[in-house]
Amino acid sequence: MKFGGTSMAGTERIRRVAGIVRRQQAAGHEVAVVVSAMAGETDRLVNFCREANPLYDPAEYDVVVASGEQVTAGLLALTLQAMGCKARSWLGWQLPIQTDDAHAKARIGTIDCPEMLASMAAGEIAVIPGFQGRTDGNRVTTLGRGGSDTSAVAVAAAIKADRCDIYTDVDGVYTTDPRIVAKARKLKNVTYEEMLELASVGSKVLQTRSVSLAMKEGVRVQVLSSFIDEDAPAADTLPGTMIVGDEELEGSDMERQLITGIAADKNEAKVTLTGIADKPGAVAAIFGPLAAANINVDMIIQNIAHDTGETDVTFTVPLADLPRAEALIAGQKDKIGYTATITDSKVSKISVVGVGMRSHAGVAATMFSALADRGINIQAISTSEIKVSVLIDEDETELAVRVLHTAYGLDGE
Amino acid sequence: MKFGGTSMAGTERIRRVAGIVRRQQAAGHEVAVVVSAMAGETDRLVNFCREANPLYDPAEYDVVVASGEQVTAGLLALTLQAMGCKARSWLGWQLPIQTDDAHAKARIGTIDCPEMLASMAAGEIAVIPGFQGRTDGNRVTTLGRGGSDTSAVAVAAAIKADRCDIYTDVDGVYTTDPRIVAKARKLKNVTYEEMLELASVGSKVLQTRSVSLAMKEGVRVQVLSSFIDEDAPAADTLPGTMIVGDEELEGSDMERQLITGIAADKNEAKVTLTGIADKPGAVAAIFGPLAAANINVDMIIQNIAHDTGETDVTFTVPLADLPRAEALIAGQKDKIGYTATITDSKVSKISVVGVGMRSHAGVAATMFSALADRGINIQAISTSEIKVSVLIDEDETELAVRVLHTAYGLDGE
Repeated sequence: MKFGGTSMAGTERIRRVAGIVRRQQAAGHEVAVVVSAMAGETDRLVNFCREANPLYDPAEYDVVVASGEQVTAGLLALTLQAMGCKARSWLGWQLPIQTDDAHAKARIGTIDCPEMLASMAAGEIAVIPGFQGRTDGNRVTTLGRGGSDTSAVAVAAAIKADRCDIYTDVDGVYTTDPRIVAKARKLKNVTYEEMLELASVGSKVLQTRSVSLAMKEGVRVQVLSSFIDEDAPAADTLPGTMIVGDEELEGSDMERQLITGIAADKNEAKVTLTGIADKPGAVAAIFGPLAAANINVDMIIQNIAHDTGETDVTFTVPLADLPRAEALIAGQKDKIGYTATITDSKVSKISVVGVGMRSHAGVAATMFSALADRGINIQAISTSEIKVSVLIDEDETELAVRVLHTAYGLDGE
Repeated sequence: MKFGGTSMAGTERIRRVAGIVRRQQAAGHEVAVVVSAMAGETDRLVNFCREANPLYDPAEYDVVVASGEQVTAGLLALTLQAMGCKARSWLGWQLPIQTDDAHAKARIGTIDCPEMLASMAAGEIAVIPGFQGRTDGNRVTTLGRGGSDTSAVAVAAAIKADRCDIYTDVDGVYTTDPRIVAKARKLKNVTYEEMLELASVGSKVLQTRSVSLAMKEGVRVQVLSSFIDEDAPAADTLPGTMIVGDEELEGSDMERQLITGIAADKNEAKVTLTGIADKPGAVAAIFGPLAAANINVDMIIQNIAHDTGETDVTFTVPLADLPRAEALIAGQKDKIGYTATITDSKVSKISVVGVGMRSHAGVAATMFSALADRGINIQAISTSEIKVSVLIDEDETELAVRVLHTAYGLDGE
């Protein structure tokens, strides 16, 4: 079981979490719980680090920020004890959760925890701070923001858990954002790959890394809400969303929709370079430096050359990387040979996602015509095996999502 | 070097501390720094524990409260790095600081730290969170409130430090509280035993345990202020107070006063039991249960028996233990056989302390006559080899301290 910062924010909420955990144990399960820091605490600690040293050493940053999860782990253990459960905390260095030494963005290596397994078998609930680990050299590491989801999946894999329940402030994964589409439906199942595509285009239910890890390790992940009725039945009968492999899905869900969900992402920016010489090497001169700077370019369109022998190239980058991308391109102006840069951050990427489209043609065509019918102009397109994305004017985001939700027959009651 | 919670409270103060540390390194010293949590932070964490579980498991309490020092250790390392120093933190479990498993009041066993010594020899400043350690079973422990002084002395002993500088919010040990006596003088030196007597009777400069440890291990401790002028010379030339052994003192300080200091302690309460049968066993029936309950009885007076064959017994206990002491005595009423209990918490214990009194008679007589001259009534007396204490009315505390400060010739300019 994993609980996020909102669920752990203060004594009363931790007591609520303890109640949910206790019910799982009472239902006959051995339970390990991974917890985040109290909401706001990690920000507070990060700010201290920035004030101390704007160019902070990530090793010492990790020492400071890992403390937030240590506090909530101890407090949840105490709260469970107050309810009569046996419980103890297992810190990253105690378990241990071994990681590489990429401080502030460490990757988990091995979790070998016979001691904890013995303690769980003896009826003790294990409480594990998320987000943290230790290097082979015994230094504290953290996994990067949102890393507690990844901790939970990694622990679930290490102890061969039957299920990894991620409690969040939503009660599952929806066909789209219910704040945009009132008729959005909660999904009973999604596949790892669908979840990855949905997560990467702005459906922030789970950290992408944790989904990749779950897919790699075959961990069955359930997303469900921690703000449930205290008297509700134990979580295995609760309607969260299960994230599972293709094979499990095919057997269980015959009436599955072609399209699983629709995601919108406003955190992209469009860049157009005009007057580029239509010759080999020009495009490489643009995207080489961006790739080297770790800027993730998504959609790319190269127009047909004008009569002048020049062309325009349009692409998208994450909004946060736009200033760096502009600077890099300006620095390469001579090498690339372009006339002007036009940027537009008022764009939105709309994606339809579903493993069903592997075996069905026409998904993209449905998308284009549905949007065209409402006069929504498509500025760029990209596709993967289970996803079609288009770039549109940001102001049309909600309209486009609603139109597509209806077009693919996803609307619920 | 050790810095307390007031010195570590926030970015600006930590920067000030880093400046002091850097100057020591610049003066050619290898430096290890022990830090407390930010002022108020430990209280905040303790409150969380109490809310989670009023009967908290001290092992999990330790996990929670040890985090405060982890944060300041990381932040000081970051701040030192920002100033161009090499620095790193060494947490209790990393160093490691081995303790017994008496959680929340652990005692330090061994500190074996070849890695840290090598790092210091290579010019890296070691930053160590005070208050925390780990058991042989790899659980987190804390040393009890104020334990960071003890951590500092223990680390100083382990690394065979030339000096252990304890930076506080006062600039040394005074002949008495300067808030009471304007003419109080800062002492250049005190002996461990004097410091122990002064600490135990209310002069709260250092934790008693840390002084005992320094005495046992022969660590030269200096008390000095962290609120000094940033441009002042390095601390070895600053006028703090050195706490040293008798032998060092005798050679260096020929003009030493007979009396080193005068302390006042308002945290005592007086208990009188009346109508006790003057027979063997009655007194044992009083003090046996108190000792078993770990209540520290200090002064004891048994009056001469009245004609009735009955007597009164008066003694003092720490004010905080008074309710427990009263309950214990009430529970033993039949066994003790007394008429009534009279308690008085409006008392004050005044002590004169000095190793010089070992070889000088008349110290107590001077005290009694000086107080009598001002009409101050002595309610009880206790003495040790280097201390004479009297119990008086709390309202006369300041007057008594001033009178004695003058009587023993301690007044400065």
